[in-house]
Amino acid sequence: MVQATALPRNEAGIETAVGILKQRFGDRLQTGGAIREQHGHTTTWIVNQSPDAVVFPASTAEVSEIVTICATHKVPVIPFGTGTSLEGHVNAPAGGVCVDLMQMNKVIAVNAGDLDCVVQPGVTREDLNTHLRDQGLFFPIDPGANASLGGMAATRASGTNAVRYGTMRDNVLSLEAIMPDGQVIRTGNRAKKSSAGYDLARLLIGAEGTLGIITELTLRLHGIPEAISSARCSFPSVDAACQAVMMTIQYGIPVARIELLDEMSVRAANAYSGLTLPETPLLLLEFHGSENGAAEQAATFGDIAGEFGGVDFAATSTTEERNKLWQARHDMYWACLQLRPGAQGISTDVCVPISRLAEAVGAAQDKAAELGLIAPIVGHVGDGNFHTLPLIDMNNQAEVANADQFVSWLNDLAISMDGTCTGEHGIGQGKRPYLVKELGAATQYMSAIKAALDPYDIMNPGKIVPSQ
Amino acid sequence: MVQATALPRNEAGIETAVGILKQRFGDRLQTGGAIREQHGHTTTWIVNQSPDAVVFPASTAEVSEIVTICATHKVPVIPFGTGTSLEGHVNAPAGGVCVDLMQMNKVIAVNAGDLDCVVQPGVTREDLNTHLRDQGLFFPIDPGANASLGGMAATRASGTNAVRYGTMRDNVLSLEAIMPDGQVIRTGNRAKKSSAGYDLARLLIGAEGTLGIITELTLRLHGIPEAISSARCSFPSVDAACQAVMMTIQYGIPVARIELLDEMSVRAANAYSGLTLPETPLLLLEFHGSENGAAEQAATFGDIAGEFGGVDFAATSTTEERNKLWQARHDMYWACLQLRPGAQGISTDVCVPISRLAEAVGAAQDKAAELGLIAPIVGHVGDGNFHTLPLIDMNNQAEVANADQFVSWLNDLAISMDGTCTGEHGIGQGKRPYLVKELGAATQYMSAIKAALDPYDIMNPGKIVPSQ
Repeated sequence: MVQATALPRNEAGIETAVGILKQRFGDRLQTGGAIREQHGHTTTWIVNQSPDAVVFPASTAEVSEIVTICATHKVPVIPFGTGTSLEGHVNAPAGGVCVDLMQMNKVIAVNAGDLDCVVQPGVTREDLNTHLRDQGLFFPIDPGANASLGGMAATRASGTNAVRYGTMRDNVLSLEAIMPDGQVIRTGNRAKKSSAGYDLARLLIGAEGTLGIITELTLRLHGIPEAISSARCSFPSVDAACQAVMMTIQYGIPVARIELLDEMSVRAANAYSGLTLPETPLLLLEFHGSENGAAEQAATFGDIAGEFGGVDFAATSTTEERNKLWQARHDMYWACLQLRPGAQGISTDVCVPISRLAEAVGAAQDKAAELGLIAPIVGHVGDGNFHTLPLIDMNNQAEVANADQFVSWLNDLAISMDGTCTGEHGIGQGKRPYLVKELGAATQYMSAIKAALDPYDIMNPGKIVPSQ
Repeated sequence: MVQATALPRNEAGIETAVGILKQRFGDRLQTGGAIREQHGHTTTWIVNQSPDAVVFPASTAEVSEIVTICATHKVPVIPFGTGTSLEGHVNAPAGGVCVDLMQMNKVIAVNAGDLDCVVQPGVTREDLNTHLRDQGLFFPIDPGANASLGGMAATRASGTNAVRYGTMRDNVLSLEAIMPDGQVIRTGNRAKKSSAGYDLARLLIGAEGTLGIITELTLRLHGIPEAISSARCSFPSVDAACQAVMMTIQYGIPVARIELLDEMSVRAANAYSGLTLPETPLLLLEFHGSENGAAEQAATFGDIAGEFGGVDFAATSTTEERNKLWQARHDMYWACLQLRPGAQGISTDVCVPISRLAEAVGAAQDKAAELGLIAPIVGHVGDGNFHTLPLIDMNNQAEVANADQFVSWLNDLAISMDGTCTGEHGIGQGKRPYLVKELGAATQYMSAIKAALDPYDIMNPGKIVPSQ
């Protein structure tokens, strides 16, 4: 495991604040070891750093009260959703109070006529879509995990269908948040667009709880398309698959999803999900539109795929077949782990200009082989974003060192290609060294903003920007 | 005219900085009265406040040098593009140096395979689209005026086809900017998405030059659609037209533009552009897609329009007819002015949830009538954004007072409907009182960010947030 740096603890402040909160929240504040450890846990190889207490507020006013108490005593506050983040986002390197928002899980309003809704941060994306289904609406962002919408906003999440619908950045109209001094703000309203002042919603989206805690989200919704169809196509090489992706995007086909699985990933999917796909690089696609439109998109893609040696092209609009394919895609993390039972999967998350995608994926495969790593690749390739998942025996020090070298090499590669070290997972603790490599002097102004809004560095300290 | 408050001038600093800049830039620094006045001028009823000098840099390094000199002497810096903003954005209430960026007008790179390009801030949207045409690409944001792309980013501009393609917020991948201390930063790279730290690009977009000067933009491009078709349809009432818009959006028709002209605006367009449209509320639409797709969209809209009493529906895919219609739409500002020659047009810019649109437009028509104002309305109604343009005899004090009352009433109305006082024009000087009404406590954090990044308040002072 990788150990994140511990930060100085304000013992007296923590003791006082936790005492006050215990009196105020009773059983809704927990200090047991198991629950604290669980709230420092994420799907990561970064060592757990537990908070001192976990509190379960039920309202915006309660979150404001918690932050106000913690601000008074200069005690860290770490917001928590489903704990599915990947870069140590919920670790507590200076201790403090974890604010578990999962009891704030109400859908407050669905404004079908306006294609928007207002939700609390603990609503998960699946819960929201279940709630919306009867009204013919859906919320498109799908990072794989059934994450909370507050957490998805905090990490600027995206996933498989960002290529068509954008990321959380694009699908939040406005936020309510508790700022580091405990005050409640609203960043905007239900207007579809606005030029009213600094875009505080976009500043909080992706800030990973370091500037405030999101307590309500106004989200943009979409009508469930008249027709949804899927397609898959196998390619002779990653390069050929990537060329087909680039042509598809350039051609302006509004694909809803276009996912790459490399050979190793296809093998994993076949084994785990009982499929019989050709074990060569595969593209999985989804098309949304009218009946004619979706069919036309699939046909046009089929033509493009053919040009690049695509074979075994199969399109389907039956729900069952489609769900089977996409379930297999969603299960890829678990499927890949089964390639090497007992190993830890270390998810990388680079995103490069699509013209560099084939080169980047190919180089990652070569580098992994050179380092003797088993490292399947899946990618949201319409955006140039892909995840290599080295499967590591964490008891083998040499292997861990190789994994570390691989991650570092890959992040540097993406940056050298005018891309980013994180397309959707965020910086957290794990990517902090790369943020400076990637954005240089710009990070100084991030630090300045952090210091201005959170002068005592209490909001999720040790994440994104260097501590003061 | 409305007089914006003057701010204290740093006479000694201004004299010193202008002296140094004159030595450095020679004839590229101008202090003549006419040129200074021209650089305080915008299409607005706010009184001109001229800068002390206008400088014409040719590179990022020169802008950095200018800002560094001005920072050293605590002298205001006001960026300038085409001067087409509407809320006094380029006024110099504390004097200072206007930085005219129109000599930085190079298209630096077009990456067709990645659907992006890199441009200097003085490139106008029409210049860029002319440059791109041969490659089958276009940049969609169209605020009407042939504005500079730097200025469009600074005001978070949008316009007629934001309903499909989003605003400047959505179509900028990253920015290069000069920060208030003169340092150059890059907010990101050419990756299509990123979760790397605070979204400084989105913070600078819409900051109206108050946090930094944009010196380079990496923009998202789109393929020119295979087919573009237009349609128009007349409605018995504004309410019926708005109902048709709402249904169109809910239905998920990916309209590229959907514009409302009220009766008075149609009358103006007929007179100015030699059209013979029925003088009732009108919707103008544009559809982008494949041949079949665009035709299907038009047909579906035709069905919806029919349900709401739409008549005289006409769709066309010939370029000439389409251009004639959209030229008339683009000329609406001038056409409306001809309804009352000699009058000043005062553009409003509210945006409301689309379910409140009919009510808002109707109320605006009633209120204008009640105040005896001639006030045609056009709107980017797919987003719930509309502009009322009271035509005012600026020598008639009672009328000016009524216009003032109308603008104030309309902004309050939008805010009361969970909408915004500015969908796309920005805050500038004119909308500052409404920003606080709209966003309340959130504006305190805008001020905190401003103070942190620009402690001497030199970047376009007197705009958006209250001065320190």
